[in-house]
Amino acid sequence: MKNFEFKNPTKIIFGQGEIPKIATEIPAASRVLLLYGGGSIKKNGIYEQVTTALAGFEVVEFGGIPANPEYEVLMQALTVIKEKKITFLLAVGGGSVIDGTKFLSSAAEYQGDEPWDILDQKIPTKKGMPFGTVLTLPATGSEMNSGAVITRAETKQKLIMGGPGLFPVFSILDPSVVSSIPQRQIANGLADAFTHVLEQYMTYPAGALLQDRIAEGIIQTLIEVAPVILKQPSDYKAASNFMWSCTMALNGLIQKGVPTDWAIHMMGHELTALFGIDHARTLAILTGAHYTYNFETKKEKLAQYAQRVWGVTEGSLDEKAKMGIEKTVAFFHSLNIQTKLSDYTTAYEGTGKEVARRLTNRGMVALGEHGTLTPHDAAKIVALAY
Amino acid sequence: MKNFEFKNPTKIIFGQGEIPKIATEIPAASRVLLLYGGGSIKKNGIYEQVTTALAGFEVVEFGGIPANPEYEVLMQALTVIKEKKITFLLAVGGGSVIDGTKFLSSAAEYQGDEPWDILDQKIPTKKGMPFGTVLTLPATGSEMNSGAVITRAETKQKLIMGGPGLFPVFSILDPSVVSSIPQRQIANGLADAFTHVLEQYMTYPAGALLQDRIAEGIIQTLIEVAPVILKQPSDYKAASNFMWSCTMALNGLIQKGVPTDWAIHMMGHELTALFGIDHARTLAILTGAHYTYNFETKKEKLAQYAQRVWGVTEGSLDEKAKMGIEKTVAFFHSLNIQTKLSDYTTAYEGTGKEVARRLTNRGMVALGEHGTLTPHDAAKIVALAY
Repeated sequence: MKNFEFKNPTKIIFGQGEIPKIATEIPAASRVLLLYGGGSIKKNGIYEQVTTALAGFEVVEFGGIPANPEYEVLMQALTVIKEKKITFLLAVGGGSVIDGTKFLSSAAEYQGDEPWDILDQKIPTKKGMPFGTVLTLPATGSEMNSGAVITRAETKQKLIMGGPGLFPVFSILDPSVVSSIPQRQIANGLADAFTHVLEQYMTYPAGALLQDRIAEGIIQTLIEVAPVILKQPSDYKAASNFMWSCTMALNGLIQKGVPTDWAIHMMGHELTALFGIDHARTLAILTGAHYTYNFETKKEKLAQYAQRVWGVTEGSLDEKAKMGIEKTVAFFHSLNIQTKLSDYTTAYEGTGKEVARRLTNRGMVALGEHGTLTPHDAAKIVALAY
Repeated sequence: MKNFEFKNPTKIIFGQGEIPKIATEIPAASRVLLLYGGGSIKKNGIYEQVTTALAGFEVVEFGGIPANPEYEVLMQALTVIKEKKITFLLAVGGGSVIDGTKFLSSAAEYQGDEPWDILDQKIPTKKGMPFGTVLTLPATGSEMNSGAVITRAETKQKLIMGGPGLFPVFSILDPSVVSSIPQRQIANGLADAFTHVLEQYMTYPAGALLQDRIAEGIIQTLIEVAPVILKQPSDYKAASNFMWSCTMALNGLIQKGVPTDWAIHMMGHELTALFGIDHARTLAILTGAHYTYNFETKKEKLAQYAQRVWGVTEGSLDEKAKMGIEKTVAFFHSLNIQTKLSDYTTAYEGTGKEVARRLTNRGMVALGEHGTLTPHDAAKIVALAY
């Protein structure tokens, strides 16, 4: 096991009917900016629950944060924060709204001239404006971690940010919200969380026996609940396990003491930036290709995964490992998610080289758990996914 | 899944060679009380590493905290804290030293006349004096939770305390310390952590699929490393997984959203108070008896555990469940831990009734995950363990 540090101070409030606790979790006399996305919260009752709970606070609203939270939109919210002397941010939404709120938390306290520098120059956030979240879409895990991904349409960039100052103070997770989520978004959430675990697990054996077991447990849970929740999103047992699994998949715990990959995400972000493909679907496109390309370095963990998670007990290590890849691709298909780039665009030719060019421009020239994958390798992996 | 709240702000610093980080984790200009136990840290090099790291601080030492940390001893330390105007506590030891330090953290800020009231009147600690820990004995999980157990020899009492103010600010976990731990203590640590998981898992199915998987994963890891670490405590891979499993067994995570039992611990504390039997061994004595007595209410989880953890695939649910109990008892035996009270004392007659009497006196009349076990039941369970 590698040495590690772990600290996650976010308070999780989990369960049906917990949204009113906002009222006691936000410090008294806060001036609150309520942030949300396209307005689905006004249809599913969440908006009403939240605003009722906020009755005792001065509240300003900022809606319309888009999927892949957009810098220009967030800069408008930053102006509101400054003009209205906001002291607390409340994100009500999925990963995009929460990530956008994290950018605002950081930007509100940033002393430089140009907040984009936080992303472009990779400036870690040690202290941000305090914020809480009400999660409406299980997927990204942003509700219990300190990272965010922000998009800038103008430059077709999608960059990551983070730091110890960006953990939510609290996050309220009410699984009953799942019943109002469109099936496509549920499928995306399942695929996103599934791939989050894989990026922290499918590397090489590092002697971290417990982390492996927990990672496998999250994956097993997602596999168990996926068909139930897709068929019947109001199934509370499935919804609650789906929601908690998504959070646990990326709250830092399973990546401690182990090597991590994240190449699928790095390449996937480029596919979203280039084609606007849903984040989770870019991961589904690239996972099989990535593991096939890196078969030799990942086959021990692929075989362990095939055996423990999918019950593959027959065959050689190589055969089990290949079954691990096949089972993964089949799982994405079971979610009705296609796994080839050509399923999403006819203009896929040359995408590998374009992704490589963009990664090179960003200095991302050493991907994967060994840091040995070059943009040239990325081009080949993306091409395998056509 | 039941509704839950989860917040654990302790910073874990895990790995070989991490003890020097004490120097940067303790706030500058702190007046530090260094607390430890019987002096084993002076033989295994930990004391030297810690005092070297503390070179920049004013430090007062308080050694001699006994196993089952004793109130009278701790009251002497409290006097030191007040006389020397201590501002930060550093526990270097196992669960007893850390639990004792938690009592001191609470008592140092307590406004009442008699600190024993914190225990006797179950007063939760909202804010304590800040403290860190350097763990030298994996077992109790106290390094990453906010609970403690304190003993008062005078009255033969062993009581629990806790509260959100009692999380360590940081805990340093260096698995290389395991190589110097006597085999008996390693066996105790394995049995203790194992039973911690069981108390949070062996209840009834509550639809918490992920928590079950994580609990099973901790148990599987303990089973995997136990024979290795008992034979070769310097095996770093086994030692690190042993250490991290003990922490994860009782840092709050796996008990969230599920019913918990803890009857084994409540009865076991009485056996320690009455006979001075090692805490972990009291758990090993009572586990089989408790599960046998409560077979009907626990058999579904017992069968799940037998199947997933021990690979028992044959037989009816009842048969699998019984195998689960047998495998558990056999595991304790594999650690060279005896599982009958008569293995430890010849004066066991009447112990069941005495335990019942003591539980009654403390108002503990509704034990178990259903709250239906009376002291009368406890008497029978203890008698089953003779």
